[in-house]
Amino acid sequence: MKVISGGITKPEGFRAHGMWSGIKRSQKKDLSLVVSDIPATTASVYTQNSVVAAPITVCRRHGRNGRARAIIVNSGNANCFTGKQGYADAVCMAEACAAALGIKATDVLVASTGIIGKPLPIEKITTALPALTAALSPAGGKAFAQGILTTDLVIKERTVRLTIGGKTVTIGGCAKGSGMIAPNMATMLGFITTDAAITGKMLKQALKEANEDSFNCISVDGCMSTNDMLTVLANGMAGNPVIDKPGKEYDAFRDALKDVCLDLAKKIVLDGEGATKFVTIHVKGTKTAKQAREIGLMVANSMLVKTAIYGSNPNWGRVAAAVGALGIKGIEEDSLDISFSSFKKKDVSITTTLQLGRAEATVYTSDLTHEYIRINTEYN
Amino acid sequence: MKVISGGITKPEGFRAHGMWSGIKRSQKKDLSLVVSDIPATTASVYTQNSVVAAPITVCRRHGRNGRARAIIVNSGNANCFTGKQGYADAVCMAEACAAALGIKATDVLVASTGIIGKPLPIEKITTALPALTAALSPAGGKAFAQGILTTDLVIKERTVRLTIGGKTVTIGGCAKGSGMIAPNMATMLGFITTDAAITGKMLKQALKEANEDSFNCISVDGCMSTNDMLTVLANGMAGNPVIDKPGKEYDAFRDALKDVCLDLAKKIVLDGEGATKFVTIHVKGTKTAKQAREIGLMVANSMLVKTAIYGSNPNWGRVAAAVGALGIKGIEEDSLDISFSSFKKKDVSITTTLQLGRAEATVYTSDLTHEYIRINTEYN
Repeated sequence: MKVISGGITKPEGFRAHGMWSGIKRSQKKDLSLVVSDIPATTASVYTQNSVVAAPITVCRRHGRNGRARAIIVNSGNANCFTGKQGYADAVCMAEACAAALGIKATDVLVASTGIIGKPLPIEKITTALPALTAALSPAGGKAFAQGILTTDLVIKERTVRLTIGGKTVTIGGCAKGSGMIAPNMATMLGFITTDAAITGKMLKQALKEANEDSFNCISVDGCMSTNDMLTVLANGMAGNPVIDKPGKEYDAFRDALKDVCLDLAKKIVLDGEGATKFVTIHVKGTKTAKQAREIGLMVANSMLVKTAIYGSNPNWGRVAAAVGALGIKGIEEDSLDISFSSFKKKDVSITTTLQLGRAEATVYTSDLTHEYIRINTEYN
Repeated sequence: MKVISGGITKPEGFRAHGMWSGIKRSQKKDLSLVVSDIPATTASVYTQNSVVAAPITVCRRHGRNGRARAIIVNSGNANCFTGKQGYADAVCMAEACAAALGIKATDVLVASTGIIGKPLPIEKITTALPALTAALSPAGGKAFAQGILTTDLVIKERTVRLTIGGKTVTIGGCAKGSGMIAPNMATMLGFITTDAAITGKMLKQALKEANEDSFNCISVDGCMSTNDMLTVLANGMAGNPVIDKPGKEYDAFRDALKDVCLDLAKKIVLDGEGATKFVTIHVKGTKTAKQAREIGLMVANSMLVKTAIYGSNPNWGRVAAAVGALGIKGIEEDSLDISFSSFKKKDVSITTTLQLGRAEATVYTSDLTHEYIRINTEYN
């Protein structure tokens, strides 16, 4: 597997673009579109929040058949808590996009990120669609990546190439997110394209596994958004023998997908609101990887641990208290080992070793800083 | 029920004192003792953290027979993560105290709060014991309340009086806690005395009920300490007919105990690290009170909600996202009502009404401020 550049339009048969449609007052790009030349297999994971934005509801419906050709994304407005009108607007966004592309509305996925509770200015989106579709290009991945940002400071892309069944397969991804962001802005969005040929079932499985070890292992502030979404489109144009069962080919694809997801996830943490440190938390010696991840997230979300790291203070008492906070039986003083890298550097690592079993997991987070408070307080 | 002053020595037959034993460099009081003239019925609730301090282990053992006469508490050192020596020190603290009082070691409960991971200077405690026991007095409640503090800015006391079975019953309490506090300091401690006559079983039940609606409903930073403890001693000297079953008398006692606990819990929030606001979160229309409390604590612990309140910004999108974050089915946009009091005032209230059932709960928290970050960062 080789890391290359190019983003979501690097795989064969994908075109994209991003532009300013008038939603953001800043006149920064706020509307992005990626299209596969031919119908693609698709899989997604969505926020577990009970309160979900209208586009998530639309995606769950449109994604049900496991096929899609396009993803349209606006930033600057989350279309969340916008009632029946919001749902109608999300449907309209898919339908207008489908009409402009000459494809079926159910083949279009929709995502939104930005302010919660304000009506989506749908007419700005529909008005921009002709220009957006006309500008679609195999070089448009970067513009797409720009158009999905809210308070992110940088675009986040990752592209890898590998050989499957003698054919060159490319996976490109981009993401946005840097906390659940002011004012009322939210959301981790991740979009991945690939020219690999893979069945819907195996694609779903690969995304699930990749997500578990990447986006599900990061936390900036422990707040779950109403709009989180991670989607992959696989159009098969690489011409590899279709991956339709577990095995060597599946493993190679899944590992490459995981690499893309993990790299994007880490970039979100690095761009975390007010973050001055990148923190890697290893949890070892648990019964299951899930248990290790849960413990790691308790440490990652502990305000006391996060402030200790900000203060460059290797405070293992706070880590121990966070590890124990889940109340898991068998975690005791004598069986708990905590070690640190230097807290003075930008990259910090914490390793917690338990004696419950042989599983492990790694979780990533940022520190809690004055700048986080400022960003989330002074946004009026 | 009448609110009076006097603290834990107001009920009949309790004497207390607090002094500086040399643990705190600041020369502030760091050793407290309360004693009942006669053996008292006792009940306690402890931290649910897997990692617990040595004094908690000792209390679980000494409290098992439901009887106690004294509680000795040091501040400035948590005696947590101190290994076998720490356990031996906690046992020694109880034994030396028992010897000085001429009572059994198993009738002494022990609590510690302060720095984690440093050996308890037990000889300072044993050396101070003669002076401490000699100074015990029915006017010593305030000194006791002072001796248990760490970074708290104020002492926290509550005393109530009521009539049960024609007799005057008094309940006095004090507490400490203002977050899980620098450097490595921890812990909510609550101590309650009463002259009510009540069986161990009913006392345990009353404390459980009172705790659920008070200390279990507050959060400053969502961090669970290794030393949390709430203990009540009931010596029966009020001479009321023994409360030995549910009924009017039990309800009156339980409600008074709840008042003491809730008042102390609110005082902890008010004294929360860096807090500028006192936030009351009502959650209504849930299936159970437990569910309402869980949802309320998600809102209370959301960094985004806490920073919004600090910024006096009534950001209901953040509240909605926190309410949904538990993933409870049946919480939807149409069935979720959120209302606020003015966020400009020091007292802020948020009411969330769901349509899952008829239960409700109230949770209390503080805002997340620059001062919290400063306190927990710059403690070197």
